[in-house]
Amino acid sequence: MRDQFHDDLEEIGQTLVQLAKLVKLAMSQASTALLTADLAVAEKVIKEDDVIDNIQHELDAKTIGLMARQQPVASDLRTLVTSLRMSADLERMGDLANHIAKQARMRYPNSAVPPELSLTIQEMGNVCGQIVDKVTLILQNRDAQKALEIEKDDDAMDILHRKIISTLLDPKWPHGVETAIDMTLLGRYYERYADHAVSIARRVYFLVTGEFATQKS
Amino acid sequence: MRDQFHDDLEEIGQTLVQLAKLVKLAMSQASTALLTADLAVAEKVIKEDDVIDNIQHELDAKTIGLMARQQPVASDLRTLVTSLRMSADLERMGDLANHIAKQARMRYPNSAVPPELSLTIQEMGNVCGQIVDKVTLILQNRDAQKALEIEKDDDAMDILHRKIISTLLDPKWPHGVETAIDMTLLGRYYERYADHAVSIARRVYFLVTGEFATQKS
Repeated sequence: MRDQFHDDLEEIGQTLVQLAKLVKLAMSQASTALLTADLAVAEKVIKEDDVIDNIQHELDAKTIGLMARQQPVASDLRTLVTSLRMSADLERMGDLANHIAKQARMRYPNSAVPPELSLTIQEMGNVCGQIVDKVTLILQNRDAQKALEIEKDDDAMDILHRKIISTLLDPKWPHGVETAIDMTLLGRYYERYADHAVSIARRVYFLVTGEFATQKS
Repeated sequence: MRDQFHDDLEEIGQTLVQLAKLVKLAMSQASTALLTADLAVAEKVIKEDDVIDNIQHELDAKTIGLMARQQPVASDLRTLVTSLRMSADLERMGDLANHIAKQARMRYPNSAVPPELSLTIQEMGNVCGQIVDKVTLILQNRDAQKALEIEKDDDAMDILHRKIISTLLDPKWPHGVETAIDMTLLGRYYERYADHAVSIARRVYFLVTGEFATQKS
């Protein structure tokens, strides 16, 4: 009975890894759609968000079913509760990639991103990719040290986000208010995606060490 | 033993109601701070976000402790899992009020909101107040019909949000890019606050009826 339980726990862990890989792909494609004004790729991300949502719903149902049948205590219970929270973070990361893809679609055939900010958005996409790769590793092998590294990646994201705002506030900004609104929202979506990845890393850190990783306000 | 358990469930429900009242107050004060450029009120909201966070952490610890000790199944387990999710929504609503208060503080002694949008922001604050009042009632008496009403309030919020964007895009918009960035973010914070309230209503609806309330995309 216990062995089956630990197989089930293992399967839940694998599904979280699968979700992390899907939200990585979604963000990478959303960034491509945004930077190259590629409507087909944008539509693909938007359509496949349902796949992520469905996997999350099934995962949560399985997790709650396991709680009911196995009545776990202590670290097993904590693992299952944390799994519910991480799946919610991952689902939200998928939503944020979806928002970016929708922004790309809304401005098609134009690009929502003006040339001055193209590189910054590309870097934000790259940082998201790096963070979610680390999240995937952390979910696979519960590496608490790797979880701490993610805080630094998040600092890089904050710097990129501030760069967007300072570019928008440059008196010579030539693209008007509509593009400024787009860029403000896009910057926020990338930043929130990274925030959720950081949350997952912190949750694993707490699960492994029993201590909180340093919290930023 | 079961009676104690149901007392504990009742206490968890009361703490969720307490959190709903606190995040209502936080949003109401944040809106006041924003619209009247009142630094003292902004600081109060920012400071008291820790109180909300601490109540949430204690509530979650109690909820997980109850899962471990009582090993609930079926509807009791579902209630506890839903409590964890609702406390996360409420905590996030507190964060969003906090973001609004920080925006007020950042622009002090000026107001972050230009006169043209003052009434719209005030209405957004009012809608948030109405929604969270309904959430409080729903948490108190599990009223599934009231949960459906909240979807309409959320539609009102979407209309107000679109009004902000159309005001910013008016060719005669006189306040420049910085204020447009502020208003874009503020609009997003109010909208997300309402989204989380809607999530709570949907969770209660599902708990009571076993069915999903109509989902908006």
